[in-house]
Amino acid sequence: MTVSNDLDLSQMLADTEAEILRVVGAREGATAGVYEMIRYHLGLDGSSGPRGKRMRPLLGLLAYTSIAGEHTAALPGAAAVELGHNFSLVHDDIEDGDVERRHRATLWALHGVPQAINTGDLIFSLSRVALHRLTDLGFSDAKVLRLMRLYDETCVLLCEGQYIDIATSAQDEPMTVELYFDMIGRKTAALIAASIEAGALLATDDDDVIARYRRFGWSLGLAFQLNDDLLGIWGEEQKTGKVPTDVARHKKTLPVLYAFEHATPADRARLAELHATPEPSEAEIVETVAILERTGADDFTRAEARRHRDAALTELDGLAVVESAAREKLSAIITSVISA
Amino acid sequence: MTVSNDLDLSQMLADTEAEILRVVGAREGATAGVYEMIRYHLGLDGSSGPRGKRMRPLLGLLAYTSIAGEHTAALPGAAAVELGHNFSLVHDDIEDGDVERRHRATLWALHGVPQAINTGDLIFSLSRVALHRLTDLGFSDAKVLRLMRLYDETCVLLCEGQYIDIATSAQDEPMTVELYFDMIGRKTAALIAASIEAGALLATDDDDVIARYRRFGWSLGLAFQLNDDLLGIWGEEQKTGKVPTDVARHKKTLPVLYAFEHATPADRARLAELHATPEPSEAEIVETVAILERTGADDFTRAEARRHRDAALTELDGLAVVESAAREKLSAIITSVISA
Repeated sequence: MTVSNDLDLSQMLADTEAEILRVVGAREGATAGVYEMIRYHLGLDGSSGPRGKRMRPLLGLLAYTSIAGEHTAALPGAAAVELGHNFSLVHDDIEDGDVERRHRATLWALHGVPQAINTGDLIFSLSRVALHRLTDLGFSDAKVLRLMRLYDETCVLLCEGQYIDIATSAQDEPMTVELYFDMIGRKTAALIAASIEAGALLATDDDDVIARYRRFGWSLGLAFQLNDDLLGIWGEEQKTGKVPTDVARHKKTLPVLYAFEHATPADRARLAELHATPEPSEAEIVETVAILERTGADDFTRAEARRHRDAALTELDGLAVVESAAREKLSAIITSVISA
Repeated sequence: MTVSNDLDLSQMLADTEAEILRVVGAREGATAGVYEMIRYHLGLDGSSGPRGKRMRPLLGLLAYTSIAGEHTAALPGAAAVELGHNFSLVHDDIEDGDVERRHRATLWALHGVPQAINTGDLIFSLSRVALHRLTDLGFSDAKVLRLMRLYDETCVLLCEGQYIDIATSAQDEPMTVELYFDMIGRKTAALIAASIEAGALLATDDDDVIARYRRFGWSLGLAFQLNDDLLGIWGEEQKTGKVPTDVARHKKTLPVLYAFEHATPADRARLAELHATPEPSEAEIVETVAILERTGADDFTRAEARRHRDAALTELDGLAVVESAAREKLSAIITSVISA
């Protein structure tokens, strides 16, 4: 184990994937098939396809490294958070009816809804099993239990956020901007904040420091989501028509909610019509985006994304860290990913 | 807290439900709806409908009481196991397409598949949250962690068993008797064994005693399942036509698998035809049962159920227990429930 001043992120990723494979590796006999399904979903089936950014484990490992100076002891936590994230993706794909993820068929599209539900449940169960290796690596029982409580409470928040998302999508009326922030806090910020908090709490007993990492992670999570909201309508891929925009998919992201609350009565009525059109045409999408822009929804969302990003950077700057290279990586990730 | 010689099972059940309500009680605001859905599924919504037997928590509490002389300290474990069992029921109902459970509409039938998947995930998450109260009740971190590891590994077995069940149901050929025992071990015996083992390990540090309770629970779990298999075809409700038999639903239980392996070639061919008939008539069901009986499938299943029940009773007899009333209750439950 080398304590590196020039952190190698690809090594962290490779170590995380090896740690995940400890719990999802090949099985003999009657259960071999479901473990193959899991490795396929995770992009760990030997194919060269895209396999997800592994952002959550990476953030957790960097947080741990910034205090502890190395990352390997925190790998079970990194594996657990990536497995937990992926359990929710497998179930989200069923819930949203998405037949593709990362340019490959989703599990339910390949194996049917029953097997996909159950495979998600197994990934969820295995994410907990992964955490128990922290005990073998020498962490105290108190520390491991505290981490598990954080993980368990975070999973509750994730499901609560998903409930709000499904419940409001099923209704005719859009939800409010206020409820949207509540929802993305639970759905997105909670797991990112927990990943980073977990990294910190494995490395230190200082509750003030742990709380600070958590605040950093929470702001970062909100900034990530708002940046995604912006790119989903005004991103390069959307402009070049490579992927359907969030507008075509009727996603109720912040720009849409803001526009509903701030449009003129005529624009709001038209927006509601457009939002209810099952398969909007190119012209209708352009018209929708024009209404959003007239309300200043893009500027508002960009300002919000920046505000949360800057809050994250300020929190990060205030942290006393042993391993400054890890802090710089964290800072670099934030500024590169959040382009808003 | 009274140490009772005349154990009150209804008190144990009431205490278990109160413990469950600690984590699934009413919420304010945007998440209120999903907690209502959970209480509805659990029969804890104030309705007077049937609410499940709560067999798993009861067995765990009796195991704990048989050593510790009282049950209240083990309640978080009882709540967790009942929540874990119910998370799997919510997902099973979707996977099996069942629109009713305990004479009430299932969650997915009422709220759609997406909300039901997510509600199951939330129940699963809450089952872990329930366990953390063991720490507040004074159990050591090492003990709580050991219990969590048992729970996590049991959840893995449950999902593996469900995978085998779905995978073999989707095929034209029935699975083997050998694979069936593998499957019900994971799907049914594992959680019953874990409930009882959990009760024991909260009460004692003696690994021999804990292992013995586990063996008792495993045999009991197999006996329960085989008894269910028998009642699903030859039970009173089936004879009186009150509910569709397992034969009408084409369930591949032990009697059917045994018959496929032991029928004459002509009977086997006819059984395969009958098994492939989408909605068998009364006459076809009678014919199927007659084939099963010609192979001795009922006698074989009854003998297997008794063998595992007797193994459980022998294991129970060999246990040194403080609270003999609890042991007697366990014994009475076994002989009353397993009518085979």
